[in-house]
Amino acid sequence: MKALIFDGKIALRDIPVPDPGPDDSLVRVLMAGICKTDVEITRGYMSFSGVLGHEFVGIVERSSDPSLVDARVVGEINVGCGTCTACMKGMERHCAHRTVLGILGRDGAMAEYLAFPTANLRIVPDSLSDEQAVFTEPLAAALEILEQVKVEPDNRVLVIGDGKLGLLVSMVLRLTGCDLLLVGKHPEKLELFAGIGGRISLLDQFSRTDDTFDIVVEASGHPSGWELGVSRVRPRGTLVLKSTYQGTLTFNAAPLVIDEITVVGSRCGQFGPALRLMEYALVDPTPLISGTFSLDRAEEAFRRSMSSDSMKILLKI
Amino acid sequence: MKALIFDGKIALRDIPVPDPGPDDSLVRVLMAGICKTDVEITRGYMSFSGVLGHEFVGIVERSSDPSLVDARVVGEINVGCGTCTACMKGMERHCAHRTVLGILGRDGAMAEYLAFPTANLRIVPDSLSDEQAVFTEPLAAALEILEQVKVEPDNRVLVIGDGKLGLLVSMVLRLTGCDLLLVGKHPEKLELFAGIGGRISLLDQFSRTDDTFDIVVEASGHPSGWELGVSRVRPRGTLVLKSTYQGTLTFNAAPLVIDEITVVGSRCGQFGPALRLMEYALVDPTPLISGTFSLDRAEEAFRRSMSSDSMKILLKI
Repeated sequence: MKALIFDGKIALRDIPVPDPGPDDSLVRVLMAGICKTDVEITRGYMSFSGVLGHEFVGIVERSSDPSLVDARVVGEINVGCGTCTACMKGMERHCAHRTVLGILGRDGAMAEYLAFPTANLRIVPDSLSDEQAVFTEPLAAALEILEQVKVEPDNRVLVIGDGKLGLLVSMVLRLTGCDLLLVGKHPEKLELFAGIGGRISLLDQFSRTDDTFDIVVEASGHPSGWELGVSRVRPRGTLVLKSTYQGTLTFNAAPLVIDEITVVGSRCGQFGPALRLMEYALVDPTPLISGTFSLDRAEEAFRRSMSSDSMKILLKI
Repeated sequence: MKALIFDGKIALRDIPVPDPGPDDSLVRVLMAGICKTDVEITRGYMSFSGVLGHEFVGIVERSSDPSLVDARVVGEINVGCGTCTACMKGMERHCAHRTVLGILGRDGAMAEYLAFPTANLRIVPDSLSDEQAVFTEPLAAALEILEQVKVEPDNRVLVIGDGKLGLLVSMVLRLTGCDLLLVGKHPEKLELFAGIGGRISLLDQFSRTDDTFDIVVEASGHPSGWELGVSRVRPRGTLVLKSTYQGTLTFNAAPLVIDEITVVGSRCGQFGPALRLMEYALVDPTPLISGTFSLDRAEEAFRRSMSSDSMKILLKI
């Protein structure tokens, strides 16, 4: 089968169809999404090598659970050991011995076939398109904020960063009815949120105000986003760190203590609620799609996804 | 009256007795404590100049509330504007226009007399000694953690730092029944906590373990304490920043996001619960006293408080 491999460089290769284990399913991949994490991996993040990709939708061809055959599925990306304290509490996402699809110790989904634990698969509601379903993972990551932080309807909330993550976070947080502002540098990206009634501001304009917020979500991935976030969260407010940073952050910690700010690191979320939000037609991430490429053109797709004007790039397998 | 002034250097001066305003009380100071913040102020922190000191106990001599005359009192150190949103919510501690006794825009308590808002005074229960009462402010700061973070009886909790703050925090957190470990570098300071049944470990020994904790309180004030804290808090756990750091922190933010750690900055607390804990004889901070000096010997007292083997130094006015 064809598979997109990273082993220091990125290349489409022909490799054997994977052999599913006794608790696994063999999934024929329909579509995969390119995430910023994939791009970072091709720059050395996580020292990963193998088949890339963790956002996918596919059809089950063989399975340890025969009732799943022919089902259209997505897959929770963290595979826990199943026996540690974290796994016992249902927190496989934080299992110290976990593998992560296409990120840590496990081949990913940018290939014609994927062997994956059946327990991690989730059936996609019929009403969703493949293009929607492939957003389940990043939408779940955005929803994770609501699992961690109580966002109240009268809260003033700032989202920093108009990339894919910032937009998905904004689409989710608006559901709380909170007073939400999305700040970014790209008018055409901000417009995607304004188009569904969201309040937006260009960073330059925003910088001339001195508004503060109960909750700030940093989703820009730039250290300057952290600084802006700390300066705009009210005393006793919450700063959610939704982006990982390459390298180190240098900052003055005194305001965190003096203003008693809470900083919450936030990563992966659960797929069930993300699928429901799309099924209920409360969130439609497909306006974020900037282009769809065949797997044969995957290298071009990766280059495209690195350009500052592109949002989500999909691979049609 | 005699007053200990900092205006670039520290000096005992003779200045007029302050004139209390219509909502103030005139307090004859009995005793004041030297806090690490006072030491930092003499090194330029907060660019403060004026009478030093924010930990005190005294007797009311005149007051806007005549029933308080002759009462023994301590005082909440943050004086809010009384009209902003924070003050309306009872969060004078976070009023943007606040003054802070001996720290920000308001003369402190290391003097024979202090004029202070009557609303900030709290009567000291008769059963408390002056030496206990003067610990009300730092004990309230330790208690603030329980106002911000839910510490459950089965939590594993690590306190980093065996200075005054780390010990007071440990004395308070043990009341939850949690599984608590205090780590520090000074056997004789750790012994103060072991003496009341607490579990302790020297940093060198602790570093050879790989224990992780639900909650970690960084009270060492060293950047290395932050690093140790991040490395020892479990995924989805909480790191409480109880110390302000001079200068900046440089760190790798990725673990905060990947492990979804919550960082909570923590500063001042409420006096009522702190006074009750001492009244109930649940916390006795007086073993932390390393020496008591007359106000005339205040400069010597400050030097003494800077030595690594000293804990709380008191000034008897």
